[in-house]
Amino acid sequence: MKALEDKICAEGEVLPGNILKVGSFLNHQVDVDFVMEMGREIAKLFADGGVTKILTIETSGIAVAMAAAAALHVPMVFAKKHRTGNLSGEFYTAVVHSYTHGTDYHVVVSRDYLCPQDRVLLVDDFLANGRALEGLMEIAAQAGAEVVGAACAIEKGFQHGGDRLRAQGVRVESLAIVESMDENGLTFR
Amino acid sequence: MKALEDKICAEGEVLPGNILKVGSFLNHQVDVDFVMEMGREIAKLFADGGVTKILTIETSGIAVAMAAAAALHVPMVFAKKHRTGNLSGEFYTAVVHSYTHGTDYHVVVSRDYLCPQDRVLLVDDFLANGRALEGLMEIAAQAGAEVVGAACAIEKGFQHGGDRLRAQGVRVESLAIVESMDENGLTFR
Repeated sequence: MKALEDKICAEGEVLPGNILKVGSFLNHQVDVDFVMEMGREIAKLFADGGVTKILTIETSGIAVAMAAAAALHVPMVFAKKHRTGNLSGEFYTAVVHSYTHGTDYHVVVSRDYLCPQDRVLLVDDFLANGRALEGLMEIAAQAGAEVVGAACAIEKGFQHGGDRLRAQGVRVESLAIVESMDENGLTFR
Repeated sequence: MKALEDKICAEGEVLPGNILKVGSFLNHQVDVDFVMEMGREIAKLFADGGVTKILTIETSGIAVAMAAAAALHVPMVFAKKHRTGNLSGEFYTAVVHSYTHGTDYHVVVSRDYLCPQDRVLLVDDFLANGRALEGLMEIAAQAGAEVVGAACAIEKGFQHGGDRLRAQGVRVESLAIVESMDENGLTFR
């Protein structure tokens, strides 16, 4: 999505530790008109997927997921982060390793909101090492739901999570794939 | 908003501790088409407010805030929760007391995303004792921005936070106000 690449170049900031800061439009302040356009783009890419539900993780995936769900006219479910997986049997749970924080966290979804009839599209703001998406795939598997694919706003191609998921046969569509970045600028795949 | 009252009656669950569970459509699974309609209702109520920005708190306020922002065609900013207020000078911060968890937490917003020219509409999913909205008002005040008002999906009228804010002169609009609730049902104001 050329408009997203342009916006990343205009407003994104590359910080030490492979961080791409896009808080001006994606995950702190949200340029809602622009993110709704991203949602329509995701809906176009998966128009033939028979998607019944969008699944994302709190917090920063919610805006893009909401936009995609609005364009596809399906409900959106956001997995909640918990410090512990010790919950009652009412939840699907998975463990996700955060490289940024060097810790594991649990993601949980109520059993009421995913079922075997669901065709699930995973949505997130960033795709780096792919651990968050793998957690969501684990949750969809526990529900017996089919994963149609994954749509991300920004993929960090140099962290190879997207490539690994594609090699596993998952349909991964990213609206912008950053191939490399440093203080001098970015290149896109 | 009659449709919201009907939805609360049909899908809401009253749990011990004055908890109204609406995870089927508002804050775990999100009925996106319905929440977008709530956003259009909020936009209608504040159409004359000259709103330049929506301000909410992560996580469960984001969906309604996104919907209102989409209808008003303005950006949305979500305040982030932190365990500590010890951050660099780049942030506006406020302390919010959570009655549910019996603890204080800090909410922070980058100074980049609110300015004295902003006319801010506060949006949240629930309004109970009003402490979260007061935290957002404190943040808007630090930015020198004007608060046009507050819009909430569901107000728990019997916890009186909305009434206290209205008595202070804040324009508070809630799409549904629960006047009382117990295991036998709910009444609306």
